Amino acid sequence: MKPDWGIRGANKRPHRQAPSSMAGSPKSLPQRLGNPVIGIIGSGDFSRSLAIRLVASGFSVVVGSRNPKRIPKGLFPDGVELRSQREAVDSAERVIFAAIYPEHYSTLVGLRDGLAGKVLVDVSNATRLDDGELSNAEQLAELFPQSRVVKGFNVISAWALQTGAHDGSRQVLICSDCSDSKATVVQLTRRLGFSPVDLGGLVASRDIEKAPLHLFPSWEGATLVTFLLFLFFYGYNVVKHVLLPYLAHGEHNFYQLPLETVNQTLPAVALILLGLVYLPGLVAAVLQLARGTKYKRFPSWLDRWMCRRKELGLMSFLCAGVHAVYSMCLTLRRAAGYRLLNAAYRQVKAGVENSWEEQQVWRSDLYLSCGILGLGVLTLLALTSLPSVGNALNWREFTFMQSGLGYAALTLSIMHTLFFGWDFAFFPEAYRYYLPPVYLLALILPCVVLVGRVLLALPCLALRLAKIRRGWESSRHRPSHSQGQEITSGRVSPQNFGDV
Amino acid sequence: MKPDWGIRGANKRPHRQAPSSMAGSPKSLPQRLGNPVIGIIGSGDFSRSLAIRLVASGFSVVVGSRNPKRIPKGLFPDGVELRSQREAVDSAERVIFAAIYPEHYSTLVGLRDGLAGKVLVDVSNATRLDDGELSNAEQLAELFPQSRVVKGFNVISAWALQTGAHDGSRQVLICSDCSDSKATVVQLTRRLGFSPVDLGGLVASRDIEKAPLHLFPSWEGATLVTFLLFLFFYGYNVVKHVLLPYLAHGEHNFYQLPLETVNQTLPAVALILLGLVYLPGLVAAVLQLARGTKYKRFPSWLDRWMCRRKELGLMSFLCAGVHAVYSMCLTLRRAAGYRLLNAAYRQVKAGVENSWEEQQVWRSDLYLSCGILGLGVLTLLALTSLPSVGNALNWREFTFMQSGLGYAALTLSIMHTLFFGWDFAFFPEAYRYYLPPVYLLALILPCVVLVGRVLLALPCLALRLAKIRRGWESSRHRPSHSQGQEITSGRVSPQNFGDV
Amino acid sequence: MKPDWGIRGANKRPHRQAPSSMAGSPKSLPQRLGNPVIGIIGSGDFSRSLAIRLVASGFSVVVGSRNPKRIPKGLFPDGVELRSQREAVDSAERVIFAAIYPEHYSTLVGLRDGLAGKVLVDVSNATRLDDGELSNAEQLAELFPQSRVVKGFNVISAWALQTGAHDGSRQVLICSDCSDSKATVVQLTRRLGFSPVDLGGLVASRDIEKAPLHLFPSWEGATLVTFLLFLFFYGYNVVKHVLLPYLAHGEHNFYQLPLETVNQTLPAVALILLGLVYLPGLVAAVLQLARGTKYKRFPSWLDRWMCRRKELGLMSFLCAGVHAVYSMCLTLRRAAGYRLLNAAYRQVKAGVENSWEEQQVWRSDLYLSCGILGLGVLTLLALTSLPSVGNALNWREFTFMQSGLGYAALTLSIMHTLFFGWDFAFFPEAYRYYLPPVYLLALILPCVVLVGRVLLALPCLALRLAKIRRGWESSRHRPSHSQGQEITSGRVSPQNFGDV
Repeated sequence: MKPDWGIRGANKRPHRQAPSSMAGSPKSLPQRLGNPVIGIIGSGDFSRSLAIRLVASGFSVVVGSRNPKRIPKGLFPDGVELRSQREAVDSAERVIFAAIYPEHYSTLVGLRDGLAGKVLVDVSNATRLDDGELSNAEQLAELFPQSRVVKGFNVISAWALQTGAHDGSRQVLICSDCSDSKATVVQLTRRLGFSPVDLGGLVASRDIEKAPLHLFPSWEGATLVTFLLFLFFYGYNVVKHVLLPYLAHGEHNFYQLPLETVNQTLPAVALILLGLVYLPGLVAAVLQLARGTKYKRFPSWLDRWMCRRKELGLMSFLCAGVHAVYSMCLTLRRAAGYRLLNAAYRQVKAGVENSWEEQQVWRSDLYLSCGILGLGVLTLLALTSLPSVGNALNWREFTFMQSGLGYAALTLSIMHTLFFGWDFAFFPEAYRYYLPPVYLLALILPCVVLVGRVLLALPCLALRLAKIRRGWESSRHRPSHSQGQEITSGRVSPQNFGDV
Repeated sequence: MKPDWGIRGANKRPHRQAPSSMAGSPKSLPQRLGNPVIGIIGSGDFSRSLAIRLVASGFSVVVGSRNPKRIPKGLFPDGVELRSQREAVDSAERVIFAAIYPEHYSTLVGLRDGLAGKVLVDVSNATRLDDGELSNAEQLAELFPQSRVVKGFNVISAWALQTGAHDGSRQVLICSDCSDSKATVVQLTRRLGFSPVDLGGLVASRDIEKAPLHLFPSWEGATLVTFLLFLFFYGYNVVKHVLLPYLAHGEHNFYQLPLETVNQTLPAVALILLGLVYLPGLVAAVLQLARGTKYKRFPSWLDRWMCRRKELGLMSFLCAGVHAVYSMCLTLRRAAGYRLLNAAYRQVKAGVENSWEEQQVWRSDLYLSCGILGLGVLTLLALTSLPSVGNALNWREFTFMQSGLGYAALTLSIMHTLFFGWDFAFFPEAYRYYLPPVYLLALILPCVVLVGRVLLALPCLALRLAKIRRGWESSRHRPSHSQGQEITSGRVSPQNFGDV
Repeated sequence: MKPDWGIRGANKRPHRQAPSSMAGSPKSLPQRLGNPVIGIIGSGDFSRSLAIRLVASGFSVVVGSRNPKRIPKGLFPDGVELRSQREAVDSAERVIFAAIYPEHYSTLVGLRDGLAGKVLVDVSNATRLDDGELSNAEQLAELFPQSRVVKGFNVISAWALQTGAHDGSRQVLICSDCSDSKATVVQLTRRLGFSPVDLGGLVASRDIEKAPLHLFPSWEGATLVTFLLFLFFYGYNVVKHVLLPYLAHGEHNFYQLPLETVNQTLPAVALILLGLVYLPGLVAAVLQLARGTKYKRFPSWLDRWMCRRKELGLMSFLCAGVHAVYSMCLTLRRAAGYRLLNAAYRQVKAGVENSWEEQQVWRSDLYLSCGILGLGVLTLLALTSLPSVGNALNWREFTFMQSGLGYAALTLSIMHTLFFGWDFAFFPEAYRYYLPPVYLLALILPCVVLVGRVLLALPCLALRLAKIRRGWESSRHRPSHSQGQEITSGRVSPQNFGDV
């Protein structure tokens, strides 16, 4: 038996119906080049944009409105006929879009027989995310049992319809209980220049209708973590450098709040976030080593964490970038100018001809270099998270970028912090009010990750891990006959900012 | 009647012709795996690149040249046969590309019967934009009435043919009066890894042939506005800070022209451009409120303006970015060094031990912070205008970025300017030569926009506007029975830099 | 004869087999909406991700494992049946994926008759690049002569399968000796949301299997050149500014190594790389002028060079960008602070009230401006090398960006360097130890390129070149009848960073 690769709508059609075929034929109506007629019920913005796209893709369109007279001239492009809803339904060959609000579906019951046997496309969105009952599409299907309801195009904005590219760069989620009609809409979608995604039966429409309501769902975790880290370190800095000095010695450092304190906080956040990107990979490796198999699922929290490494990495990049800009603006500050002038005054008064301190020069140059290079590497990593760039990489390149360059960025950032800290951590002044300096706190996690990575690179562990990832299992798991023929090759792991 | 979704070229074919099918079959010529033979007339760069692409996509190619002997070995890849034009035409099964200059079409009349009934693809470009007469494709169709002329591939450079990806990321505009042949070329295009866009009848070829001649048409407006704004503010700065001081007091400030004056001009331009991005949205909202309906078209100038918000926003981002880089380089300037040294000299002479001015410190830190954050938000906005990023956003995310973050950027930029201005605007020195400081002029429009936005957010107006946008109409428009069932939901509005 | 545009798998099927059609039909099994059943042998990560993608695209999947019992619950999504290998093979309608390591193919011989006549997809990768013998797919084809082996999906990582977009932004390289089965897999690939690329017969699998092993092959040249240039200029700077001063006068300049020396080296590298981007275009033009024809191939080294202009340009951009960041951090360095303080000290001691030097102010402002603008233009160029951006440009826009803006960037960079050098090159101090200053060395090549470009723009040469590029040939080449009807129009040349 040979399957029919999704073009069933096409060749199941008896051939004598050729004249009405979409691709047309000499026999079909000349003036419209045999383009099939698509119907749209409703004359709102979405209907208009949909009509424009359909005409631009070589279809003929009939728009059904309840009073076509009222529609201003030129609102719809040429090639679109404005008719009554009934006429539109009748003249549409096979596909009819319902571009009206779900609450008005009931007003269409009069057209039931006209719609019978035709493909009725529901393009509506859900109004709320917490919405248990039937989806709009399911309700429509209940209203029109003889019609074949297909869900689709709700994820496409009227704007994208009107001006978007035809290069299939936008996905259209489609589902229906009639796979025949679904195939028809899939082909239509492709011809409009979108990428159809078949999500199965009409029940999937419950999710599809809610798709446009989500607000960066994959970013929630990373954003929250970043926010909390920022809050903690900002507070810590305020307490140590502003509040306590004021309470204890009446020092007025409040001017530091808007810029200096922020710029002390950001690098700490960036560094820890970068550590959090590579930590889950280590945990996973340790788990596999401990279990001696890769066929046990990871705990769900670890799975979720692994799926958020890209977002964590981009957040780290964001913080690091802002930190860099802040730092480059430091010398623009009046404060910097005043300090320099006062220093000059003191130097002159003290009669010091040369205040040069070799060690300080080395320190500043070293931490600046490491910081710049680290940020540079992070930028390359961030670039590969652009869809169009990442798609051009093969798996080995991707792993090289994420694992290789990723750890290079982590190492450089740690060195940046260490050089910045220099030997100050060994002097009691650094622990004023018994509070350790921020950069020390920020270094703990990243250093742990780096050390862990180095340990995992030791041959004894690395080899065993490689074996396990190729499917080998330690004796206590191994069944009667040897396992591990499946292709795994770690090809599941790579992901932006975080493959180990 | 069921349409045939664009694969007519395939299944209209009598099945006994299977051997020659593109997808091949056991019965077809073994050595070429039943790949169909495509003909190309002409042996230039374009012909060569097209042949390479066709072969790489599993086709067999016959190139017709007037003297095949002269073509150097290895110019064409294996799988390409070099023949006389007549032989090429005869051995091509169905599709023949005419890859010669239009002025030479007449030299092909001898092949007329060979070309009869076959699909002749015209890949030529127009030479001038102001070109009233028939398109090349139409002229070709007149020369070969029995052939089915299809326009296409002229928007693809030989370079893209040869090295471009096969992921359909490039569009190919196609049109023809024979929709049957068009469907064939559409399928061929898709198989070559491009995205076909059906633009209807052959008359569309007039536009298609001119497509490669346009130079950033959508950017004209934004570029012009930016240029004029820059000219005005640069002139204003020159007059106020260089010319008048020189004429009035003989001050030599000409050294400011290359950098300082530019850096005073850029932020003003960026700020006003950002205001211009959000103004049309407000105007549109006000119009809808005043008219009490959304079914009246906007004046065309407003429509055009709305369609250019993205370009205006990116121009604003460009100016803001350059301004930021200029500013970060300010302390690198010799001028900055000299000023500091002289200040140090004066301070020492005056015996001022501490020149610290708390207020100035606050001012500089505040305007720097706002500026950095504002630019950061603008950068996020600019990122979403990358096709590959914007396509990944759903409508709500897009609105959040453009409307939410957009106004955040506008607010931060205004604060940046206000903090920069501080209270100087209240001192007469700021109005030297009776000319108000630049930043004051630059603030007017953006502040108007911001205030307008706040007013529109007042419940009384916001609710009415929401109703109108969902299709409600004020009584004076409403017809006998209630309107507004159409799906509009503002889904037409979102656009980079500018949804309200 | 009409070809069948790659959907042969569909309509060659006798229609009575409709029940098993992929797009399904009322007659097919209701619970799975007539989705065709795809088989997968092996239950590793890749098998799992493939199953998830297939189910998400509306297929039914049967996974064959050697002991299905051991597979943990929930490892595979609903809609996937876990069976023995034999059962999986039997219940698969047409397509079966072999998702096990090649070394285990032999274990499948028992399933030979079950696999007979079915499409067997080999998804394995090569393990080494230097691998002469048969590809895995070819070995599989030898093991199962009655099956139709198709190579594909090995370039897709399990990760991309599971989470990648369905917008066809990823290419899947496919080849097979049975073009019928290949067409089937091509359609399957498209339905999964990938872009199939037909590379012909099964022999192509040797390259396809190695594709995932390459590591940025197109970057090797540019990276090497950049590295060597950096090495040379860094060494040169070390010798001139650190070593010799130490040996000759015991000056301790070693503190310059980490930052200052690097920042003197980067701009030289960036400038020369930018020159190398535009040099090959000039060489090509000169060759064509000298030969009086464009129908002679260029020497292969020139072809290869031309194909690497984009990489060279991006490397130049990288170096220029890092140089910019380094420079903006210069004033953050302790060294800068100390120098300023000491200068202040000297100025006070010397009693110089105003150390202002107009000329130095002009110099620094001019070279900063040119540098910033040059980098800005380079940034725009780099943006167009993002696939999603470059694809949106037509050919004229592309040429404008690459040729027009490219030379603007080159000119600005040269001016940046000239202004930086000012008139120092005319003083003996600049040639300490008889070593010319670095920026002089870096200027030679770019200036040559710029002058060459200007010469080629002279009407006499420009016109002749244009004629040649439109196919005209000088008399000594011209055959009996006039040549040059082929479409060439230089449309082959444009490429990021480098069209002339």
